[in-house]
Amino acid sequence: MKICVVGNCGHSGQMIREGAKVQEAEFVGYCPSYLEEDLNNIEQIFEANSYYPARYDNYKSMLKKETPDVLVVDSMFCDHCSITSYALECGINVFCEKPVALSLKDCERLEKVEQKSTATFWAMQTLRYEPWTYTAKKLIDQGAVGQIRMINCQKSYKLGKRLAFFSDRNKCGGLITWVAIHGIDAIQYLCPQHFRSVFARHSNAENSGNGDLETTSICLFELDNNVLAHVNADYYRPASAITHGDDRIRVVGTEGVLEVIKNKVFLINMQNNDEQPQELVPQDQIPTIFGDFLQTLQGYSIGLLNASQSILITKLALLARDSADSEKLLYL
Amino acid sequence: MKICVVGNCGHSGQMIREGAKVQEAEFVGYCPSYLEEDLNNIEQIFEANSYYPARYDNYKSMLKKETPDVLVVDSMFCDHCSITSYALECGINVFCEKPVALSLKDCERLEKVEQKSTATFWAMQTLRYEPWTYTAKKLIDQGAVGQIRMINCQKSYKLGKRLAFFSDRNKCGGLITWVAIHGIDAIQYLCPQHFRSVFARHSNAENSGNGDLETTSICLFELDNNVLAHVNADYYRPASAITHGDDRIRVVGTEGVLEVIKNKVFLINMQNNDEQPQELVPQDQIPTIFGDFLQTLQGYSIGLLNASQSILITKLALLARDSADSEKLLYL
Repeated sequence: MKICVVGNCGHSGQMIREGAKVQEAEFVGYCPSYLEEDLNNIEQIFEANSYYPARYDNYKSMLKKETPDVLVVDSMFCDHCSITSYALECGINVFCEKPVALSLKDCERLEKVEQKSTATFWAMQTLRYEPWTYTAKKLIDQGAVGQIRMINCQKSYKLGKRLAFFSDRNKCGGLITWVAIHGIDAIQYLCPQHFRSVFARHSNAENSGNGDLETTSICLFELDNNVLAHVNADYYRPASAITHGDDRIRVVGTEGVLEVIKNKVFLINMQNNDEQPQELVPQDQIPTIFGDFLQTLQGYSIGLLNASQSILITKLALLARDSADSEKLLYL
Repeated sequence: MKICVVGNCGHSGQMIREGAKVQEAEFVGYCPSYLEEDLNNIEQIFEANSYYPARYDNYKSMLKKETPDVLVVDSMFCDHCSITSYALECGINVFCEKPVALSLKDCERLEKVEQKSTATFWAMQTLRYEPWTYTAKKLIDQGAVGQIRMINCQKSYKLGKRLAFFSDRNKCGGLITWVAIHGIDAIQYLCPQHFRSVFARHSNAENSGNGDLETTSICLFELDNNVLAHVNADYYRPASAITHGDDRIRVVGTEGVLEVIKNKVFLINMQNNDEQPQELVPQDQIPTIFGDFLQTLQGYSIGLLNASQSILITKLALLARDSADSEKLLYL
């Protein structure tokens, strides 16, 4: 399978490493997604994995020349939708960084393109492929917490030094669509019910000079059957912390409470009390997200993701962001 | 100081124990707050502390006969406001279980009565008097987290066997006004800024036959300066858990993140990383809430609470509940 990569704004480096473990994968081309984009990082990863893809100036000439099976889209987030649409229209399978679009209108356009295309489309909703999330899902599906009534999620990241386009919300989409979106994905993955509505808030105060980038957000969702869910997200994780993120998931059910904290899964139910929760190790080994995408293309896997889940999660994040902007309760 | 107690619907037992440690405190009378209320629990506590107060049929005759300095109000929650108002109008100091009223109108009526009265009025907002909350407050005021940008709170209780009136929201007020209210109090105590607005959701599904009692809620507040805050509350803590509640507070600031988990206080900032957060023990010893109320009456303390904070916190909880009922964003 011939793979091309456009841009290095998000997780293309991780995806090249994951692809390198798939025997049939061959990286044949790459290009920047904007003028003077620094591609040094992914060039090093290519070399470390003995790939010597051709460098191009822009993705259209790259796709024309290389006619790849797969395009990894990791451009500035504002360009995800147009690049993805172009590639899908060419019949090229696309694995795109989230969010897949920066407006609900673009989401709907992409949806139509995807439906007409013979190619496969997934977004980089990586949280589903973390062993702890997967383990949580398996337990929940086995009935470990009974009927889910509430999900509480946290995403806390270090702000660090962000690429310049993060300062411009028209280019990056903001905190909810980049960070909280993982929590939204976790909610939908663990509780595959229809999202009825969202009310959200965010703030771009005290953002260390990062333009209009938000630093805090809270999104409150209602799913069918009055299941409540929320995601609180922030960029205030202290720089001294050892891990980049402090992600948490808490699933409250009629028969128990399951939590993911520090990448570990804990369960309290009638058999396990709070002093001795059941700690679920070892966690299940699952494929990487890009590995699963490639295996799904080859027919070896049915995949934890698909196009409709990829577009839906971005839609929900955009709806949450629009709610925070407008101070209005919005319905899906 | 002569103290009378009406009812045993909430924490009057705890307050009698706390009062017993104050030398000048003398419990002289008690009565039920509704027909056939079981007062066995507080009778045992009186006896264990060598108090032999007179039992009355109703609070009005008790107040007339005993002319106490203090009335502890622990009736069905729907009667808090009328009993408190009556006592305040008689010039009797009142220490009332929260919520102090079950409607915003009643809150405003109570506010007027309180302003006219010479007596002192506090609600049982016990979270401020927990050593961990107090320690958190002290650290925050010393600048440990910089400027507060977000507060995330959790209240999770066992449902257990509730008194019959909990099944009737007209009598008990619901989950937000009984449980989430503590989180609201923590937010206001730790970040004493004006609350601008609230949006909330709750659900009374799967409540084990407890009438219209809600079992889950999430309240999302915006305070001045775009400070965001939320409280998620539930009655799904498994019966097997050793502690009744799983309360958490997370305060996110520009310079650090402070957390209260399992009654311990942890701080991560530039000096402390996540693998070795600063754990703040021993925690500060502070008076009990009822002890502080009595000492404040005697002029020995300035008190962590007062009438306006007591009424405000109930108002915020009622506003949150009204938001959840109406699916509307409400402003204070």
